Amino acid sequence: MKIIAKIKTDMKEKFGLPRQSGLVPELKGKIVFEPEYKDENALRGLDGFSHIWVIWRFDGFDGNKWSPTVRPPRLGGNKRMGVFATRSPNRPNPIGLSLLKLDKIEDGELYVSGVDMMDGTAIYDIKPYLKISDCRPDAIDGFAEDTAEQTSNVTFECDTDMLTKAELKAVKQMLEQDPHPSYKTEPDRLYGMKYKDFNVRFYVKDACVYVKEIKNDSVK
Amino acid sequence: MKIIAKIKTDMKEKFGLPRQSGLVPELKGKIVFEPEYKDENALRGLDGFSHIWVIWRFDGFDGNKWSPTVRPPRLGGNKRMGVFATRSPNRPNPIGLSLLKLDKIEDGELYVSGVDMMDGTAIYDIKPYLKISDCRPDAIDGFAEDTAEQTSNVTFECDTDMLTKAELKAVKQMLEQDPHPSYKTEPDRLYGMKYKDFNVRFYVKDACVYVKEIKNDSVK
Repeated sequence: MKIIAKIKTDMKEKFGLPRQSGLVPELKGKIVFEPEYKDENALRGLDGFSHIWVIWRFDGFDGNKWSPTVRPPRLGGNKRMGVFATRSPNRPNPIGLSLLKLDKIEDGELYVSGVDMMDGTAIYDIKPYLKISDCRPDAIDGFAEDTAEQTSNVTFECDTDMLTKAELKAVKQMLEQDPHPSYKTEPDRLYGMKYKDFNVRFYVKDACVYVKEIKNDSVK
Repeated sequence: MKIIAKIKTDMKEKFGLPRQSGLVPELKGKIVFEPEYKDENALRGLDGFSHIWVIWRFDGFDGNKWSPTVRPPRLGGNKRMGVFATRSPNRPNPIGLSLLKLDKIEDGELYVSGVDMMDGTAIYDIKPYLKISDCRPDAIDGFAEDTAEQTSNVTFECDTDMLTKAELKAVKQMLEQDPHPSYKTEPDRLYGMKYKDFNVRFYVKDACVYVKEIKNDSVK
């Protein structure tokens, strides 16, 4: 399996990363092809598609330590489900599948949004999204159905002036997914989510997210 | 990349195979896990999902002879598109992606329909279809849009009594996709499609498909 490209994203740490693609539309990425696969001919016609599939490698998982069951965070982290009934990274082959919005193609690079991948993630394949085969509004989502649309209310208790409007939107959308480990319930506990050069410090109370501080780590 | 399972289907040859999953709902398959990955715990909760993603290996392609452009059969076979704008098997990593209907799980095996894979195809991963991230009715399909719903009229000029109702439906649905190479236009030319033990002989005239003969190859 060859690495054909890598994606640049604003997430250098796993904490806060959306659990699925598309959940945080404002999280952007840029797919940069490896020299051997950089050929604009290979992208001919792709600009007519609004969405693409990206098949990629879960970093830090080699598939050798997979377990038949996993605890999906969406179920509170205390219920075990079969690994093939989840999108967990800890699976026999650490392959991720993401549906991304294709914003534009420029200089042979793909600008995408709705990412759920860490900065530098290796990519194996890119395919167009085909509505006729890939879009199934009649599908039944199993145990994921009830939790799919859950989002948390987010309140900023601090100054957000150092963020652009787009950055603020991305931070808000990520926190609406409430990334804190759901088995941890200590109130007042502060979590830190890294986004770009920012450290976003927040706590969770009564299923709401409160941002206490946003620090720009690049400013000394 | 480990082979976790193989799929049994009724198609032993490539000719006639649907170009995408879901196009021939009546084409069935059974996913049988390799001994090392056969564990019913790994499927816990999957039965609640109506559809699954299957990530698999394109047989006969190793990715070393990929070309940046390919000729999608849907465009008449004479127009070149970038390989990443198509689902062509001849790509840097010969990975296929299919969305299959999960009919039932029995004895740790997955019964699926809408397959587009040859009998014995090796499978790398199985994931649940999640409507919230995977279903995009607003997506724009690019050059595939116009051709997506094209189907051909199919007329049986021969006896079909040896087929069950389900088999007849499968044959009809496959031929509605008109599997004959679109750059070949000789009328009266007979094509043979293998399905189960049947050899379905047909010709194409004015974009309609006529079945001339169905032979059961297992009957001597």
